[in-house]
Amino acid sequence: MAKRDRRGFLTVGAAVALTACTEKKAAAPSEIGAPMTEYGGRSPFEKAARAFKSAKPGTGGSRTPLEETYGIITPASLHFERHHAGVPAIDPAKHDLLVHGLVERDQIFSLDALKRLPSVSRIHFLECSGNSGSEWVNPADTAQRSHGLASCSEWTGVLLKTVLEEAGLKPTASWVIAEGADACLMARSIPLAKCLDDAILAYGQNGEALRPEQGYPLRLLLPGWEGNACIKWLRRLQVTTEPMQSREETAHYTDLLADGKARQFTFDLDAKSVILRPSGGQTTTPGFVEITGLAWSGRGRVDKVEVSTDGGKTWTAATLDEPRHTKAFTRFRLPWKWDGQPADISSRATDETGYVQPTTEALVAVRGTRSGYHHNGIKTWRLAANGKVTNA
Amino acid sequence: MAKRDRRGFLTVGAAVALTACTEKKAAAPSEIGAPMTEYGGRSPFEKAARAFKSAKPGTGGSRTPLEETYGIITPASLHFERHHAGVPAIDPAKHDLLVHGLVERDQIFSLDALKRLPSVSRIHFLECSGNSGSEWVNPADTAQRSHGLASCSEWTGVLLKTVLEEAGLKPTASWVIAEGADACLMARSIPLAKCLDDAILAYGQNGEALRPEQGYPLRLLLPGWEGNACIKWLRRLQVTTEPMQSREETAHYTDLLADGKARQFTFDLDAKSVILRPSGGQTTTPGFVEITGLAWSGRGRVDKVEVSTDGGKTWTAATLDEPRHTKAFTRFRLPWKWDGQPADISSRATDETGYVQPTTEALVAVRGTRSGYHHNGIKTWRLAANGKVTNA
Repeated sequence: MAKRDRRGFLTVGAAVALTACTEKKAAAPSEIGAPMTEYGGRSPFEKAARAFKSAKPGTGGSRTPLEETYGIITPASLHFERHHAGVPAIDPAKHDLLVHGLVERDQIFSLDALKRLPSVSRIHFLECSGNSGSEWVNPADTAQRSHGLASCSEWTGVLLKTVLEEAGLKPTASWVIAEGADACLMARSIPLAKCLDDAILAYGQNGEALRPEQGYPLRLLLPGWEGNACIKWLRRLQVTTEPMQSREETAHYTDLLADGKARQFTFDLDAKSVILRPSGGQTTTPGFVEITGLAWSGRGRVDKVEVSTDGGKTWTAATLDEPRHTKAFTRFRLPWKWDGQPADISSRATDETGYVQPTTEALVAVRGTRSGYHHNGIKTWRLAANGKVTNA
Repeated sequence: MAKRDRRGFLTVGAAVALTACTEKKAAAPSEIGAPMTEYGGRSPFEKAARAFKSAKPGTGGSRTPLEETYGIITPASLHFERHHAGVPAIDPAKHDLLVHGLVERDQIFSLDALKRLPSVSRIHFLECSGNSGSEWVNPADTAQRSHGLASCSEWTGVLLKTVLEEAGLKPTASWVIAEGADACLMARSIPLAKCLDDAILAYGQNGEALRPEQGYPLRLLLPGWEGNACIKWLRRLQVTTEPMQSREETAHYTDLLADGKARQFTFDLDAKSVILRPSGGQTTTPGFVEITGLAWSGRGRVDKVEVSTDGGKTWTAATLDEPRHTKAFTRFRLPWKWDGQPADISSRATDETGYVQPTTEALVAVRGTRSGYHHNGIKTWRLAANGKVTNA
């Protein structure tokens, strides 16, 4: 029973020899602690925060401190934000969803009416297509800055398919235009096939009501598709034959290629991963280190994550937390013994379609450097001999 | 495409005919909404709350409003509480874990040292063994009151096995006494086999640090075992040959049988389920109703949940949200058309060991009515013709 663990955690100084047991016991509290509460909050010692620039009121993005989160669920309070006209304050009793256009029966659903329909609860990531935009030209120095426009929640809602079947689609129906109730009436056009597949009219997030920043009381969730198309504060669905060519699918959220042409409607988010511990801005010491991070794919489950500690020369398969959910964060872990020498560490995800996360060089060769969107290249962190971690 | 859904949701009046599209559009907000925040909160329109009596400061329990939650993740802010000396305010930088007794090397782990060891993230329920205690003699009239001492989270931490291997167990090691840093020094004795199986030293909950009410900064999590044994604010682990016979394993948390004898160390929580919508205190109307609720088992995965709408005469298998996690909440759903006649509805879980959730009558036949603990009997709700739901 007393056999020493061969991984040798003790050599990192994880535990200290017993020195002050008596003092420790004397430090036990003698007073009754705080009472129960109706709705709890986090410890005042916890400081993890979304990061954002507040130059323009109502527009911009705040980033999840992924390197300070655990597991695959992002706390709703730290879920990234991306607003174009601020967060509207909506009374759910006064909020309806209008379904009209190429349907047999125009409909208005109250929230209560919607919630009465069959629901699903599924764990899915959400990612802004602008996530990792920095990596095209000027790689960011922390995971929050490079990858913090991605989060993962358990979403609950009604399949959009159910509502469209209620309304009855006309034979020429091909697209659905979704419109939000923010001041800019954010609108995007969604191909009908996605609407009839796994699209969700989400009213729940991580067990409670959707948070205001995520579209309270109703959001269109398109699992695996770029966040901007997942219209928040959803108030209207219009079934059409063509996309509406809104500002967000023409001037923005298109992928500008090297030849000056722009790709439209590039909804899918390809397989991606990032090491979170150790990652930029952190400091570590030689000895045992668990390399851990997150991987995800908009096209299904993550099947494999490999980690390199030698700048991409060799790769080792990490273990993946099970069960893995489709189109969701997957946590990977690899035990490693750091010898204190400078090291470049990176991760590479493969999804169930067989797609392998590319290097940034491979991405740039195909797409140039002008896109800004949909960067899913391999991120490399550099451990210096002094233990500091920076972008490589 | 326009074929009417045969489940006939429309007959329940889920949606109303299009009446006021123009007015709806006119109601769009014209002002920029609220700005981004570092750590978000829920909408002020949301009121779900833990329920508790506050007679004695620092002791008692607060119950999760399960019937107001979605999916399988319980929001950390609504996770049930059960304190015996209030919630201590602990500075994690000053909190250590002492491991001593029948080990080769006594150890003190700081939080940082612990977190450096290999970690796991797993979704597990927690349940107070006193949950559903009301059902022995005086069944409660809402799901929060009958089943609200159970919650489910994604927990992150170090396997206790890893730490015990670090310390090196002596050959006579048989039990581990776990002690918390609350003012009552809550302590329980845990058989070594569980400690070397799936026990977790948890520091994370739903992606962020453990909440203060759940033992911040460190809790012993024994998946599938009664909550009281999952010592919060964990500060000490002593490896011994015998259990300590603490107050909480002698005077309390034992199962008093009809003959006056009490069973000790009944840690496992057997398979259980409860319908949450419709449930006591709610009102519904005739037509389509999705019957939904939660099932769980301390002995593994839930394999089946059956629902009866005729007082237990006939049972229909509900669908289970996938993937199912072991020793975790499992969400079940059954579409149903309520004809408006009085109906008794109940659910019955079967776990992967083949164990079937019993009736309360069958439980009482074996265990009498004096136990107070470990009630996992079938709960039945009565729908009256006026749509009101009460305990049956």
